[in-house]
Amino acid sequence: MKIIIDCMSGDNAPDEIIKGALEGAIESNVDIVLVGNEIIIKNVLRELPAEKANIEIYHTDGEPLTMEDEPSSVMREKKDSSMAVSLRLLADGAGHALISAGNTGALFTGSTLIVKRIKGIRRAALGAILPPFAGNPMMIADAGANTDVTPENLCEFAVMSKLFMEKVMHVENPRVGLINNGAEEHKGTELYRNTHAMMKEYDFNFVGNVEGRDFPMGACDILVCDGFTGNVVLKLCEGFGQFMKSKLNGIFKTGIVSRASALLVLPQINKLRDTMDYHKYGGAPFLGISRPVIKAHGSSKANSIKCCIAQAKEYALSGIIQEYAKMAANPEAYKKASEDN
Amino acid sequence: MKIIIDCMSGDNAPDEIIKGALEGAIESNVDIVLVGNEIIIKNVLRELPAEKANIEIYHTDGEPLTMEDEPSSVMREKKDSSMAVSLRLLADGAGHALISAGNTGALFTGSTLIVKRIKGIRRAALGAILPPFAGNPMMIADAGANTDVTPENLCEFAVMSKLFMEKVMHVENPRVGLINNGAEEHKGTELYRNTHAMMKEYDFNFVGNVEGRDFPMGACDILVCDGFTGNVVLKLCEGFGQFMKSKLNGIFKTGIVSRASALLVLPQINKLRDTMDYHKYGGAPFLGISRPVIKAHGSSKANSIKCCIAQAKEYALSGIIQEYAKMAANPEAYKKASEDN
Repeated sequence: MKIIIDCMSGDNAPDEIIKGALEGAIESNVDIVLVGNEIIIKNVLRELPAEKANIEIYHTDGEPLTMEDEPSSVMREKKDSSMAVSLRLLADGAGHALISAGNTGALFTGSTLIVKRIKGIRRAALGAILPPFAGNPMMIADAGANTDVTPENLCEFAVMSKLFMEKVMHVENPRVGLINNGAEEHKGTELYRNTHAMMKEYDFNFVGNVEGRDFPMGACDILVCDGFTGNVVLKLCEGFGQFMKSKLNGIFKTGIVSRASALLVLPQINKLRDTMDYHKYGGAPFLGISRPVIKAHGSSKANSIKCCIAQAKEYALSGIIQEYAKMAANPEAYKKASEDN
Repeated sequence: MKIIIDCMSGDNAPDEIIKGALEGAIESNVDIVLVGNEIIIKNVLRELPAEKANIEIYHTDGEPLTMEDEPSSVMREKKDSSMAVSLRLLADGAGHALISAGNTGALFTGSTLIVKRIKGIRRAALGAILPPFAGNPMMIADAGANTDVTPENLCEFAVMSKLFMEKVMHVENPRVGLINNGAEEHKGTELYRNTHAMMKEYDFNFVGNVEGRDFPMGACDILVCDGFTGNVVLKLCEGFGQFMKSKLNGIFKTGIVSRASALLVLPQINKLRDTMDYHKYGGAPFLGISRPVIKAHGSSKANSIKCCIAQAKEYALSGIIQEYAKMAANPEAYKKASEDN
């Protein structure tokens, strides 16, 4: 098993990416291909126990993609960036999976155009993983890749997410919810009313419409959304995580008494902060791409990249990409037997 | 100034509604019309210092509307409910504003059909007020009344919200943000791209697209959304408020040491809980209806109703309904002078 790592993308690239890649390679027992400027990579590795893992370095000194670049630049101005090169290596079979902490739009565009969608899958989706606010980690799909979708697209996202949550995240019989502005079937826009009706035909654990209020309390394991709404939900969750952390920090900085008492409640506070931590549960898988691509959070540090490697290994070993291809070829097989309808 | 109170709607009706109405009448120095079953209302008032306010009771013993009722039932099966009667009293000028903690959909439908929209306003909006996570209270408009909207509708919501936040909530030069899945102008669906372009022509403090991540940190004072997205955002904020409260409670129930230390940090914890409290900032105004209607939260207790009365009084005195009517008659007047374009 060989994992390709885009070393030059992300807020903490290259040091933290390379450090995490090495830790992940050791812990998950996989080989890694580090893509980026060879001199810089070797410099970082010199301080680390690099001899403990099988490492290849694939050199490119193309200017790295930044968060400000247009998604299309991965195909054009920045086709020699570490991200673009990593994507071509994955497409050519030089590794089994790819991890990048770079520009989400560019990585998605590159995945679609270079690595390509699975034949028959109409749209690939960005499946963001949220921390287990309420027990299990949760997935939002689509979390921002497709702003205009059809009910067929959303049902496809649901099946792909279900398989990912089951086989990679080990959530048993994951509950699929449909974002909506009310619990009743007739609520929402035409898109959501039609999707609700269609989802009932599928053979997954559909729990119906889920309102924003019930999501943080764990009303479903997978929240199916159009990319516009899904992105708003994902970023609000991130925003509230940040808000909560800053408020908790604030509480214990307001005086000597509080600081003393903080020592006593610190274990619980840390546990709560941990619950809100995005970095422990791997990255966001791209669902429907023909090889596993994991988008690590832009602010990933070493530990986060390490977790992404474990996740990428499971993704590659799970066989779900073959399963997605089967679904694309015969979606009817994923629907309930007609006597159940 | 006379405020009409729907006494039989809401989770804590009628006791808490009546208690809050009386407290509000005394504190805000307004007269109140209590609508509902006269025997029940008099029974509740018997325990209260009712002599301190000018109270009228308007009797109806029609079955109250519940959260399960269809919105249209306010016009049909339940046209004798306290909510329906309250709406007719407002339309007839028996009071200057109306407060109800009942079924939002029914109250909105009744407001539109009985009290009626301001002439020329194409759509009325539900303007939800959020606690001041980051300084000022914030408004989401539309928070769920209109799932299918046009750029013109969203611009109208923005102008109405701006006037409300300025004149009733006393937020100076409120910052108007447009929900989106990215900061750049070209992001989002066609609706949002066109709205962004149109909003730039208006003479309000438009801060551009606002992502979910930035909203809890106070990126804008008014978040303009279609009703589907706005409802998801509002309910996620509520859900996170609940989540945070339950986690904070949990921290201090996990052992004798924590409980002891809780006493020390309790003031800060309570302050944080207060920040998240929905009930202190009044209810959700309906924007674009020809007389002031305030939707109190379904779980409102006396204190929340009291705050709604202060808010309803300000709404009625502010003159913004006349201002909305002016805008509807001449929207161009609310746009930047052409030399600024």
